[in-house]
Amino acid sequence: MAKPESDSLFLLTDLYQLTMACGYWKCGKAEQEAAFYLTFRRNPFGGQFTVACGLAPVLDFLREFHLSESDRNYLETLAGSDGKPLFEMAFLDDLAKRQLTCDIDAVPEGTVVFPQEPLVRVKGPLLEAQLLETVLLNIINFQSLIATKAARICMAARGNRVLEFGLRRAHGINGALSASRAAYVGGCHATSNVLAGKIFGIPVAGTHAHSWVMSFDSEQESFQAYAQAMPNNSIFLVDTYDTAAGIANAVRAGRWLREQGHEMLGVRLDSGDLASLSVDARRLLDEAGFREAKIVASGDLDEHSIAGLYDRGAPIAILGVGTKLATGYDDPALGGVYKLSAIRDEEGAWQPKLKTSNDPAKASNPGLLQTRRFTQDGNFLRDVIYDELEPPAHDWAMADPSHPGGAESVAAKAEGEDLLVPVLRGGEPVYAPPPIEESRQRTHDQLACLSPETRKFKNPRTYRVGLEQGLHKRKAKLIENILNR
Amino acid sequence: MAKPESDSLFLLTDLYQLTMACGYWKCGKAEQEAAFYLTFRRNPFGGQFTVACGLAPVLDFLREFHLSESDRNYLETLAGSDGKPLFEMAFLDDLAKRQLTCDIDAVPEGTVVFPQEPLVRVKGPLLEAQLLETVLLNIINFQSLIATKAARICMAARGNRVLEFGLRRAHGINGALSASRAAYVGGCHATSNVLAGKIFGIPVAGTHAHSWVMSFDSEQESFQAYAQAMPNNSIFLVDTYDTAAGIANAVRAGRWLREQGHEMLGVRLDSGDLASLSVDARRLLDEAGFREAKIVASGDLDEHSIAGLYDRGAPIAILGVGTKLATGYDDPALGGVYKLSAIRDEEGAWQPKLKTSNDPAKASNPGLLQTRRFTQDGNFLRDVIYDELEPPAHDWAMADPSHPGGAESVAAKAEGEDLLVPVLRGGEPVYAPPPIEESRQRTHDQLACLSPETRKFKNPRTYRVGLEQGLHKRKAKLIENILNR
Repeated sequence: MAKPESDSLFLLTDLYQLTMACGYWKCGKAEQEAAFYLTFRRNPFGGQFTVACGLAPVLDFLREFHLSESDRNYLETLAGSDGKPLFEMAFLDDLAKRQLTCDIDAVPEGTVVFPQEPLVRVKGPLLEAQLLETVLLNIINFQSLIATKAARICMAARGNRVLEFGLRRAHGINGALSASRAAYVGGCHATSNVLAGKIFGIPVAGTHAHSWVMSFDSEQESFQAYAQAMPNNSIFLVDTYDTAAGIANAVRAGRWLREQGHEMLGVRLDSGDLASLSVDARRLLDEAGFREAKIVASGDLDEHSIAGLYDRGAPIAILGVGTKLATGYDDPALGGVYKLSAIRDEEGAWQPKLKTSNDPAKASNPGLLQTRRFTQDGNFLRDVIYDELEPPAHDWAMADPSHPGGAESVAAKAEGEDLLVPVLRGGEPVYAPPPIEESRQRTHDQLACLSPETRKFKNPRTYRVGLEQGLHKRKAKLIENILNR
Repeated sequence: MAKPESDSLFLLTDLYQLTMACGYWKCGKAEQEAAFYLTFRRNPFGGQFTVACGLAPVLDFLREFHLSESDRNYLETLAGSDGKPLFEMAFLDDLAKRQLTCDIDAVPEGTVVFPQEPLVRVKGPLLEAQLLETVLLNIINFQSLIATKAARICMAARGNRVLEFGLRRAHGINGALSASRAAYVGGCHATSNVLAGKIFGIPVAGTHAHSWVMSFDSEQESFQAYAQAMPNNSIFLVDTYDTAAGIANAVRAGRWLREQGHEMLGVRLDSGDLASLSVDARRLLDEAGFREAKIVASGDLDEHSIAGLYDRGAPIAILGVGTKLATGYDDPALGGVYKLSAIRDEEGAWQPKLKTSNDPAKASNPGLLQTRRFTQDGNFLRDVIYDELEPPAHDWAMADPSHPGGAESVAAKAEGEDLLVPVLRGGEPVYAPPPIEESRQRTHDQLACLSPETRKFKNPRTYRVGLEQGLHKRKAKLIENILNR
């Protein structure tokens, strides 16, 4: 479908969230206060960092969180195994009246984050917090994945411009729009996606395709026509027939442009051995007096092939990156999860909760989770995950799971900062997402605080993240209780 | 963003389509009649077939193809390298007045297709056909990818039910909605995505998550509460703490349900060795008198792991498949392309066009392309790609590229059918997409006409597709002309 034919996105959720919501409502648990957190278990793309992205779109979604009449009419049509309605009318009445009342905390977009850290935390009525799970995961998982891929590609580009060209291979219309947005937050300079430019205020870029050249009797004629039509947007795609001949044709069009008072912006290479072709192209352009003309390269690029191009000295000034960026090709899903971590009992006391697993590393963390990041001399030193319900009294010691009982204190000089900031209080927004340029700058600034060993592509060093000593002990005890049950 | 904040999707295109459109308009080529076709080069997932999908959403998009005032206002803000407007006002005036006038032919959704075959063909003014490229690729690439993945997963499921659970890992909101739709066309039985159910009329499914269990003091209490709240939707997730204990708890809840006149539908396993756990679960359920209760399995499944489960005799009746289906995980982009294949010259004669490449297999095909599929005794025999401008007079011989000059005639008994059907004529719809159930049935019926050797996962046999003899000769001559230029 082009546009979702729905007046509301409230139902953008898994059915089980609604059946659980109905269950909580029926057994009197709907208003019981609970805390959930959204996290992930593994950095994507074989890297050792992830760039958080998607908060602004989440806040847009939350503003419209309301069951519409057509949503309700649809839910009334759903039947259970006995053919009777799945949801009773009184529950739907309740749902239709609901407005968000929860507190949400989240890491700002462009923050560098690591596995196990909470990216979003929801505290509020169990029914409400449950209903938010799927959409939070959908938006944050994908946008963080693409922002991370873009950050990696931009690092490989070594300061050269990166254009996101992924619309034709992205996953649907919104898959494409989200990818363009997240790629920009991650560091890209522009997108080919005009609608993304319109909606998000991102710079757009593009000149012409092979079909332009093929629609003329000759390449020369096509370049000349393009130069006349678009004198202030003159990048010529030179590989439709033969790249060397294409550059010669571009030079002729460039000379004509210069006579008219314009400068050829450059040429684009879209196939073949881009490293050697770009060296040849640079030489030909320089010899012809077009030293300022840029070489644009595209064609199945990712961070590894881009690093390879620059290692070989390719004089490429602009990179067009499509499929492998907009789909996160080699690792196309960030495996974010949303876990219940605490619930208030009838006496009003918070009870920590965790999900155990056969794999101890997969057990979730209990409490009202927060991450404190310690920085020294402008470099990220380590992150300590702690429970805001029981913060450490004085010593920020991090448990060392490889030495039972061992712990490591943070250097006294280090400065600590909490990563989660309040975004909703009592269902009302208390955070204004910054302009997208600022989120993009934040990505850049945060990456600069990571050690080069952690940023690199091959055998990157794991950044140090651990549980605060007290939280670690309480978690171990909870697991023991569950196993002994 | 939750909803695209735009009143129009006209700008869902690459900027270069608009700069080329402006170029065509300026040099008087905008109305020159051209033919383009959309195809792909490689079947995804290591298979030997692809399921075409996305036509109905494409037609929805085409109905709204019109530059809105806000689109125009945005385009007026774009500047070229000299800071002056990229598009002149007279071009934007022209664009705002345009309505579709082209002819479009396409293969119906659920059709099994192969590399090089045209999936969509556009014939009309060059400007118009160019502007449609990106959106056709975006929709058809992704939905065909997911329909193909779903078809493979459903084949592996051997007639058992497959539920699509991918919303939380899909690529954005529309990435998820498109995935749910395409998965259903490909053969899935239901989705967890409630909004997809509402919009597309697809069955929805879901019961409860680990968080339901964790929000109670004990698993037993949680199952009992769920059974009371949702007696007609009773599948219990049994692996939150310990699977064997979970099944015992489910049996207790099932007995209570039976006393109330309901039947437990089943249990869900979401972790561990699903093959052996399902055997144990089946035995425990049977022993307790719940022979009709189904075993549902989920957790990182794809066609290969599902085939492995059934090879090991797993008594699983329902499969929940998420990430690896909704993202096309192991091959997340169908590399569809859109190529100019013919253009009318000033005398009104069609000139065939092709794009050469260093790799001869990548050269596009010239002409007004169509595929004729030959069937014998209900089995697909072979597909012959031909040029409707120069169809064969009598003999449907297929060129044999491995023997220059060689060709192979189609058996006289075989019946031929053209795959592309008219969907737009003069810009007006002439095709009503069938209900989604019919497209799903078509996938099923078409796959049944493919030989088992072509459908299988390991070393599948390539289905025979070739160029009609005359087209092959004309293509070879065109390539020669280009190389000699």
